[in-house]
Amino acid sequence: MPDKQLLETFENPYPDREYDILIEQPEFTSLCPKTGHPDFATIVIRYVPGPKCLELKALKIYLQGYRNEGIFYERLVNRILDDLVAVCSPRRMTVEGHFTPRGGISTTVTASHNS
Amino acid sequence: MPDKQLLETFENPYPDREYDILIEQPEFTSLCPKTGHPDFATIVIRYVPGPKCLELKALKIYLQGYRNEGIFYERLVNRILDDLVAVCSPRRMTVEGHFTPRGGISTTVTASHNS
Amino acid sequence: MPDKQLLETFENPYPDREYDILIEQPEFTSLCPKTGHPDFATIVIRYVPGPKCLELKALKIYLQGYRNEGIFYERLVNRILDDLVAVCSPRRMTVEGHFTPRGGISTTVTASHNS
Amino acid sequence: MPDKQLLETFENPYPDREYDILIEQPEFTSLCPKTGHPDFATIVIRYVPGPKCLELKALKIYLQGYRNEGIFYERLVNRILDDLVAVCSPRRMTVEGHFTPRGGISTTVTASHNS
Amino acid sequence: MPDKQLLETFENPYPDREYDILIEQPEFTSLCPKTGHPDFATIVIRYVPGPKCLELKALKIYLQGYRNEGIFYERLVNRILDDLVAVCSPRRMTVEGHFTPRGGISTTVTASHNS
Amino acid sequence: MPDKQLLETFENPYPDREYDILIEQPEFTSLCPKTGHPDFATIVIRYVPGPKCLELKALKIYLQGYRNEGIFYERLVNRILDDLVAVCSPRRMTVEGHFTPRGGISTTVTASHNS
Amino acid sequence: MPDKQLLETFENPYPDREYDILIEQPEFTSLCPKTGHPDFATIVIRYVPGPKCLELKALKIYLQGYRNEGIFYERLVNRILDDLVAVCSPRRMTVEGHFTPRGGISTTVTASHNS
Amino acid sequence: MPDKQLLETFENPYPDREYDILIEQPEFTSLCPKTGHPDFATIVIRYVPGPKCLELKALKIYLQGYRNEGIFYERLVNRILDDLVAVCSPRRMTVEGHFTPRGGISTTVTASHNS
Amino acid sequence: MPDKQLLETFENPYPDREYDILIEQPEFTSLCPKTGHPDFATIVIRYVPGPKCLELKALKIYLQGYRNEGIFYERLVNRILDDLVAVCSPRRMTVEGHFTPRGGISTTVTASHNS
Amino acid sequence: MPDKQLLETFENPYPDREYDILIEQPEFTSLCPKTGHPDFATIVIRYVPGPKCLELKALKIYLQGYRNEGIFYERLVNRILDDLVAVCSPRRMTVEGHFTPRGGISTTVTASHNS
Repeated sequence: MPDKQLLETFENPYPDREYDILIEQPEFTSLCPKTGHPDFATIVIRYVPGPKCLELKALKIYLQGYRNEGIFYERLVNRILDDLVAVCSPRRMTVEGHFTPRGGISTTVTASHNS
Repeated sequence: MPDKQLLETFENPYPDREYDILIEQPEFTSLCPKTGHPDFATIVIRYVPGPKCLELKALKIYLQGYRNEGIFYERLVNRILDDLVAVCSPRRMTVEGHFTPRGGISTTVTASHNS
Repeated sequence: MPDKQLLETFENPYPDREYDILIEQPEFTSLCPKTGHPDFATIVIRYVPGPKCLELKALKIYLQGYRNEGIFYERLVNRILDDLVAVCSPRRMTVEGHFTPRGGISTTVTASHNS
Repeated sequence: MPDKQLLETFENPYPDREYDILIEQPEFTSLCPKTGHPDFATIVIRYVPGPKCLELKALKIYLQGYRNEGIFYERLVNRILDDLVAVCSPRRMTVEGHFTPRGGISTTVTASHNS
Repeated sequence: MPDKQLLETFENPYPDREYDILIEQPEFTSLCPKTGHPDFATIVIRYVPGPKCLELKALKIYLQGYRNEGIFYERLVNRILDDLVAVCSPRRMTVEGHFTPRGGISTTVTASHNS
Repeated sequence: MPDKQLLETFENPYPDREYDILIEQPEFTSLCPKTGHPDFATIVIRYVPGPKCLELKALKIYLQGYRNEGIFYERLVNRILDDLVAVCSPRRMTVEGHFTPRGGISTTVTASHNS
Repeated sequence: MPDKQLLETFENPYPDREYDILIEQPEFTSLCPKTGHPDFATIVIRYVPGPKCLELKALKIYLQGYRNEGIFYERLVNRILDDLVAVCSPRRMTVEGHFTPRGGISTTVTASHNS
Repeated sequence: MPDKQLLETFENPYPDREYDILIEQPEFTSLCPKTGHPDFATIVIRYVPGPKCLELKALKIYLQGYRNEGIFYERLVNRILDDLVAVCSPRRMTVEGHFTPRGGISTTVTASHNS
Repeated sequence: MPDKQLLETFENPYPDREYDILIEQPEFTSLCPKTGHPDFATIVIRYVPGPKCLELKALKIYLQGYRNEGIFYERLVNRILDDLVAVCSPRRMTVEGHFTPRGGISTTVTASHNS
Repeated sequence: MPDKQLLETFENPYPDREYDILIEQPEFTSLCPKTGHPDFATIVIRYVPGPKCLELKALKIYLQGYRNEGIFYERLVNRILDDLVAVCSPRRMTVEGHFTPRGGISTTVTASHNS
């Protein structure tokens, strides 16, 4: 599992204003813990920054860290949320995982944090 | 009719957080109880898990169980909702059935449960 | 004008649950009462059933009954709403008529009933 | 059945140049000769005019003339082609009928004339 | 500038019910008062009728009356709203002008009236 | 397997003209012969009729006959082609099967006949 | 009618290479010569330049010159082609006019020149 | 960095009515302050004007002023908001920057002002 | 690199007919040999089978074998083509790789084999 | 103007096979030589490689070199074609420039080389 220490932040340049940041990564892949076959997803992150903003290049590396990990959808989305909240203390944050169909069935998991 | 005992669950890995799961199955088919001709639909399930999450492979098998059953749209959607609620005790759940056109007319039925 | 006695209903199989039914008929046509030329529309019906549900085949026949009638958009949509409410006593119902362009101008009329 | 004498033409303003005219009428309706239920189609006409061009308002009236006629798809498209060719003697003409789904099945019939 | 006396109304056939009418005209054009070049827009009108409904053919003529007038976006949308409100006394009305790009920039102006 | 004797034809009303008929059935389902799980497809048929045209209602029943049959994609599409050619002797015919994704992979099989 | 002397050209910078230029103007309007009501169209010009290229700003002014002219679709498209060919002597040129629906019917006229 | 003195305003023609203006510029480009490579974005501005409206041509020039400036997404969007608010004192304003993907990741930053 | 011995085939059920098979895998990923970062692509395979057809499940496993391999786009597409041709001896085959944008630039590589 | 020496190539790994490479850069910008305002375009390059393939990162830098250059559409596309042909000697190459609307008019220029 990728360590949250891979994540980097920088100081929010407008800390007094409540504004929104939306990040979409359509190139996410991990492994199914049961079958070992790859899962594919789009990860969407929305947040209102607190003292820190997420640095995008480090975020990309962090998300790439799941590439060869077996993990269930529900645990994955909640774990990403916990790691991102831990490093940047946002006012609010939502993480969505939109997973491609398996057996015809597609799944989306959405988790949120309010400080 | 498929038995709800076909359904399986696993323990919610984040039971203290209220988060959302959306499941779409565009490959649903049953029979019209009047004419015996096949009906086709997309079934959409949204829920906030309680103690249990729905296992997707078993859900697929359960939904396949309607393939050769004659059942009206309104009864079908409400019955799926009742069965899913019975096995996983969600905090909230909505089931939608989007049925393809018959005589030019397309129909969507939506039912919800609040614990 | 089609008689509302063309409409048929069946008993709501889940009368204690408040759930939604959406019906779309993109193949509606009537006549312009001024020019006699055909009008084309999509009729959309949304309702929360009360004791009765609308039978779809009879609904199709009822809507076909406007084929050779001259009627203004505003009167048409309100009249369909009145007829449907009279036969099935829904908890709530909305009827929309989406009319194709005439002179470049397209029009939508929407009327609702609350019991 | 509408008489081809409903059709009108005007003189081709550029008779020496081979150029193309494409006409689309998405608001066509006739009746199924078996069931009496309405059929809906988009009619597409492509032609290279000879001495005459088709007048559009008269063409609209001619196509409206099928509104209450029972006629099979294959006969309809070929009959429109024959009528249009008879009145305007085009260098080339194609007529397509794109019919909306019945029993889930949609159909397109295409017929062509070369002078 | 077109006179609002070009507009016509007819009596609302269902004056006791609060219902909605949406009118879209994608073929609107006026002139830029600075450069004299044409502007192009889609005009969208939404209203809940009071005692009167707008007659569509007269509305088309009224909107055509801006064809050779130089007028700024902001003034145009507010002026149409004022004229329409004056002739039909709606319960509520909104007018939107969606203008095509100039210098890469596209603009939408929206104004509303509440009686 | 459905018998080709389920298929019906009618006489081509314009046998001297070479014209095209396109039929699309997006509601096709059969079974995977390995796993027993359902497959879903859109079946597309294009043909130039010879002495006979395919009757659409009987074609629908014939295609429904594969609902509970286990059959591979390649065999299915070629078999439908053989059956349709046998009953209507078309001048030319093409059958396509567009199958929904399995393991992320979607497949289309296309076979043609020339008389 | 706009004079073709409104058109301007500049020297083709690569006269020895046969290459293509495609120009689209979705904001074209003229008048119907029968009713006086406005027509709207997208004008598409494709050409392989000869010694001269069309200057775009002058082309825009030329096309605006039809704004208050009554002219039939067929004459309009052929006239634009003749004017453009006269001023820039292209190796090949095609002009298309895609007109918005009138009475539900939309029309496209296409004319070509080969030197 | 572009000076906000590049911006121009004109008097709001309907200062007593609260109405909305939406401006979209899909052709925005600046530089990444780290790598020097170009960033591309769509800038969307929504506001309810106070005493002044933004003049569009000057706004275009102002936004072009970022073309060769290195600036982070978060600072850019907040800075545009501050400059626009300073010159036109709107009742309310929102600025969105929709940035194209880098390393597969796309980002949107949204900031608002309430007077 | 995945061994072509991972691929499996089955006997073509209609070896005498020349027919087409199209396979799309939108969930392909490999690594950039320069940076080590993941590349994402849709792989499209079209072929006319000879004596053998490609078994889809084994094909999926074979394509998954590139997941942790560093390989350039041009080599990848040509290598897949060579491996597939070697195992199934098709009459004709084309392989396309549609790669997602890097630095704003997206790339497609297409290679074909004729027996 | 960017020097073609900015471009880099690598050896074609499959020089004996005639295969296709398609490159799209939707983030191209240059300046209008008349007004100094920015132009925006998508540049599309298709080629069959000869002994050399184009290196993508260097190509990106080369295309960025037009950012602050004033150049007409026709010259730009032909110049890019000449530079790319000079460095990689393709068997065939086509360059397209799809320019965003100016004065409502959008333009595409396409030039090709055959060795």
